[in-house]
Amino acid sequence: MPELRRDPVLGRWNIMAEQRAARPSDLKHEPVSPRGGFCPFDAGHEDKTPPEILAYRETGTQPDGPGWRVRVVPNKFPALHAEGELNKKAVGLYDSMQGVGAHEVIIETPEHVVSPTALSDEHFAEVITAYRQRLNDLMRDPRFRFGIVFKNVGTAAGASLEHTHSQLIVTPIVPNVISRELRGALEYYNFRGRCLFCDIVRQERDEGARVVLDDPDFLVFEPFAARFPFETWVIPTQHDSQFERISSHQIRRLAHVLLQTLRRLETALDRPAYNYIVHSAPFSVHDAEVFRGVLGPPPIAEGDGLQHYHWHIEIIPRLTQVAGFEWGTGLYINPVPPETSARHLRQAVV
Amino acid sequence: MPELRRDPVLGRWNIMAEQRAARPSDLKHEPVSPRGGFCPFDAGHEDKTPPEILAYRETGTQPDGPGWRVRVVPNKFPALHAEGELNKKAVGLYDSMQGVGAHEVIIETPEHVVSPTALSDEHFAEVITAYRQRLNDLMRDPRFRFGIVFKNVGTAAGASLEHTHSQLIVTPIVPNVISRELRGALEYYNFRGRCLFCDIVRQERDEGARVVLDDPDFLVFEPFAARFPFETWVIPTQHDSQFERISSHQIRRLAHVLLQTLRRLETALDRPAYNYIVHSAPFSVHDAEVFRGVLGPPPIAEGDGLQHYHWHIEIIPRLTQVAGFEWGTGLYINPVPPETSARHLRQAVV
Repeated sequence: MPELRRDPVLGRWNIMAEQRAARPSDLKHEPVSPRGGFCPFDAGHEDKTPPEILAYRETGTQPDGPGWRVRVVPNKFPALHAEGELNKKAVGLYDSMQGVGAHEVIIETPEHVVSPTALSDEHFAEVITAYRQRLNDLMRDPRFRFGIVFKNVGTAAGASLEHTHSQLIVTPIVPNVISRELRGALEYYNFRGRCLFCDIVRQERDEGARVVLDDPDFLVFEPFAARFPFETWVIPTQHDSQFERISSHQIRRLAHVLLQTLRRLETALDRPAYNYIVHSAPFSVHDAEVFRGVLGPPPIAEGDGLQHYHWHIEIIPRLTQVAGFEWGTGLYINPVPPETSARHLRQAVV
Repeated sequence: MPELRRDPVLGRWNIMAEQRAARPSDLKHEPVSPRGGFCPFDAGHEDKTPPEILAYRETGTQPDGPGWRVRVVPNKFPALHAEGELNKKAVGLYDSMQGVGAHEVIIETPEHVVSPTALSDEHFAEVITAYRQRLNDLMRDPRFRFGIVFKNVGTAAGASLEHTHSQLIVTPIVPNVISRELRGALEYYNFRGRCLFCDIVRQERDEGARVVLDDPDFLVFEPFAARFPFETWVIPTQHDSQFERISSHQIRRLAHVLLQTLRRLETALDRPAYNYIVHSAPFSVHDAEVFRGVLGPPPIAEGDGLQHYHWHIEIIPRLTQVAGFEWGTGLYINPVPPETSARHLRQAVV
């Protein structure tokens, strides 16, 4: 069973998941993509994964057999386990709990395709629909407080299989980065009475210099203080704190905009390794109340969302190594200003 | 001139340093160590670096000529520039300032040696003495608020030259990670009236399971909630918030303990890429007062240190890739619990 442990200095949690590496010597050998080799995600290999949790399939086909278009299975080497109670405890000044959660893999196509940009808008919309459906199912479990969808492409981005897939992890705690985003956004909301992210959308559209794509439903831009070269955000122009409430219309638009953006990155950077991550508020608005003592109650929007937080997707091409300075300070040195990368992405022919 | 930009969501600063990569296409090709090739850090190549700022040399030898043991020069591709004013400004909701600071390289030996573990304790003590001397000089500049010493070893850890060297960066802001450490430590101090790090030293010594080396002056241990496999901390057993006030006795002990620790990591992990980073409080105790409104004034120790913060060194072997989940959450999945890595390091024969 993995264990969640709290860093006593920074207050953030990390996962100790021993079974993911049998021996320390295994760590030196990163798994590589089986180019031309056996792939457990290909059609016909359904018995090489754990049984499916969800699949969008042709009528008349059987679970864990062929005929699917998008298939969701538990991760074979999960960071967190679905069974068990949290068993929170302390030893001296250290806090820990059992590593309870969910870790699923969204296999995006039965074909052995290595980039989602080979998929049609309609097909990719089904992938995003699977994200939504799984999150809406998992958030009903009272042990779970937060869910994140992400994608790793390329060995440098931590991918162990090249067949295009996404992952979903649900945690029993609100992770550090999300807590800090909620806090920063609440400080801004308290000061200005508006959503920081809505203001960013307005200012980026006005300035234009960092905009990559300006769609009525989604703005794609390079963030002003980008940590990484070609870091790119995709943000809905309509305010909502919860990704899992995305509408079917928005899903169709997001599929188109996200694939267009990834194609531009692939052209400009010659198919880089990258991660994308969906940032969304915790499942319950009450988890945004942790700063109430300092900052007052969080503003709750109609339909139970948060007025101060705004879900979005962050895309991080993995072009530079993170070195000692960045690990020690959290201050990133970015050799490509976002105005430059935005220009390259606007000019990229796809 | 590089530019510091503030992330409006998280409040942290990043550096936009365009001249470090001429074109985006250069990003794909990480600089590699010149094994057997020309090295600007070797003795006799002193004219291939900017003029030296400091050197410990044999009597009678000339600056920027041979005869040195340890040599400090400005980084040829600095992340921050020493000249100029901050020129803080805002455009709409975005804040920025000029990238003023210092970025120096400590060349640890004139021999072409690729690991500090090839140096004697006495020689490495001179390297640490150079860290102390440069920090004490730079902290007198009123534009500078924080300094950090770090080392990158191996391409995977961001090193561009293999000749053993360290770096020093001084910033006009207190970086995010240090602010958060100060805050977490102050919350603990307010609650318990003791330094969190002193309590960690006591508990680790009592438990023993995560201890690698227990020296009277420095404890080496694997942190309880380690983010990375074989993450290792070296912490002085005597309380002080400021690394730059390290005594000459402590320097001699640290040289011995740190080299012993690095040798154990090299044996256990077959010469891994790694970073080490000296975490220390900001130059001025007043920079620890940013949370006064919430947490009350910071406790100031005799001689102007902080009672709640404690300098230390974090060593991060670079064995696993950081993937989308970690970037999105700040929650790290560590496949080797610290009790396991501590056992391997205690058993490593050096």
